[in-house]
Amino acid sequence: MAAFQKAAGFKFKSLEFLNLSFIHRSFSNETDDRVSNERLEFLGDSIVGAVCATLLYKKYSKKSEGELAKIKSVVVSEETLSKIAGVLRLDEMLVLGKGEELSGGRTKKAILADALEALVGALYLDSGFKAAFDFLSRYFSPEIDLAAESGGNRDFKSVLQEACQRAFRCYPEYRLIKRTGPEHDRVFWMDVCINGKSYGPGCGRNKKSAEQEAARFAYEELFNKEG
Amino acid sequence: MAAFQKAAGFKFKSLEFLNLSFIHRSFSNETDDRVSNERLEFLGDSIVGAVCATLLYKKYSKKSEGELAKIKSVVVSEETLSKIAGVLRLDEMLVLGKGEELSGGRTKKAILADALEALVGALYLDSGFKAAFDFLSRYFSPEIDLAAESGGNRDFKSVLQEACQRAFRCYPEYRLIKRTGPEHDRVFWMDVCINGKSYGPGCGRNKKSAEQEAARFAYEELFNKEG
Repeated sequence: MAAFQKAAGFKFKSLEFLNLSFIHRSFSNETDDRVSNERLEFLGDSIVGAVCATLLYKKYSKKSEGELAKIKSVVVSEETLSKIAGVLRLDEMLVLGKGEELSGGRTKKAILADALEALVGALYLDSGFKAAFDFLSRYFSPEIDLAAESGGNRDFKSVLQEACQRAFRCYPEYRLIKRTGPEHDRVFWMDVCINGKSYGPGCGRNKKSAEQEAARFAYEELFNKEG
Repeated sequence: MAAFQKAAGFKFKSLEFLNLSFIHRSFSNETDDRVSNERLEFLGDSIVGAVCATLLYKKYSKKSEGELAKIKSVVVSEETLSKIAGVLRLDEMLVLGKGEELSGGRTKKAILADALEALVGALYLDSGFKAAFDFLSRYFSPEIDLAAESGGNRDFKSVLQEACQRAFRCYPEYRLIKRTGPEHDRVFWMDVCINGKSYGPGCGRNKKSAEQEAARFAYEELFNKEG
């Protein structure tokens, strides 16, 4: 526990909330002990939102509230929170029930993202808002830069690649189908091939954005989740 | 401005953010000065959420995260936030464009609720999280009690009465239609009469909850908003 705290860069006054933040409901359900990290997650969710909004407000003084909200939705997504949980090795700290353990709960993004929120809630209760703010800022700042670069649009190429590796152990392949429009106003059309089947095409002012659109189409069709 | 701050119970170090928090976009649109309170509202929204979640977490140690979330959704609703804005007389402080002024913007709930969020954002930037927390706690605590009493269900009788007074200048009238079931398991049926037309009936274990259901039916039918 000391090593975990040192690596994460905080030191709890008392371990009460920290310990609680690791307890997944699958464990408390199996043990008849009904205490889990879900209430801490409820609290931490709002603290994560407040910290992210503050960082965005201060960093981007020229962006509108709509632009800020779009970037925020990427930063506080399950995708990003579970990634930060991975960096912190929260998976090794989780206390799961046997069933959840057997079905791979330790690697599930939803469980990891929730555990990070619970951890933030615990730190906030133990050490105050500033401690939670300072802790999260370190991990959020690079994610905010990434999300802002894409204008708050998710990087669907990365998301699709990860999902394909997990599900099919293969990589998506992109292909230029055609160029349309005059040279000064060119539009590129790309499709993406996965397991021998084509998805798309996406179009855009350059190949990269056409690929992003194709990746989004493929992701939505294959993994059936809203963007 | 001094009187406003005194009544609200805070004192800003600098008036920069406070002044900005009153400026509605209808004013900045008309003046070509594109600065309005919308970015502050984006920030304040997340602070309002964090404060409310904290108060709920600490006050109700036995409630599940689902119950807390339900109460939170009532407390941070436009209905409740605009009510608090009214108590603070934020309507008198608003800076509106001419068009919005003529169309009654000063009394619109959405504009008032947004202005309260912007004010909270301003206080947070000027004086820190604790100042925003202390300020909001005073106004939220009674609202939290109210919302928790109803288990996080909106008080539709009050909402309907207010809406009827505004729209028709009349009061809803409730009427017991029937009782069903044996004495130890009684169900009450109430309808509500507005402008000579009946809505409902709602049913419940007691007259009050049957009235609430009838009020919800009437509200949804007459004012066509989701509950």
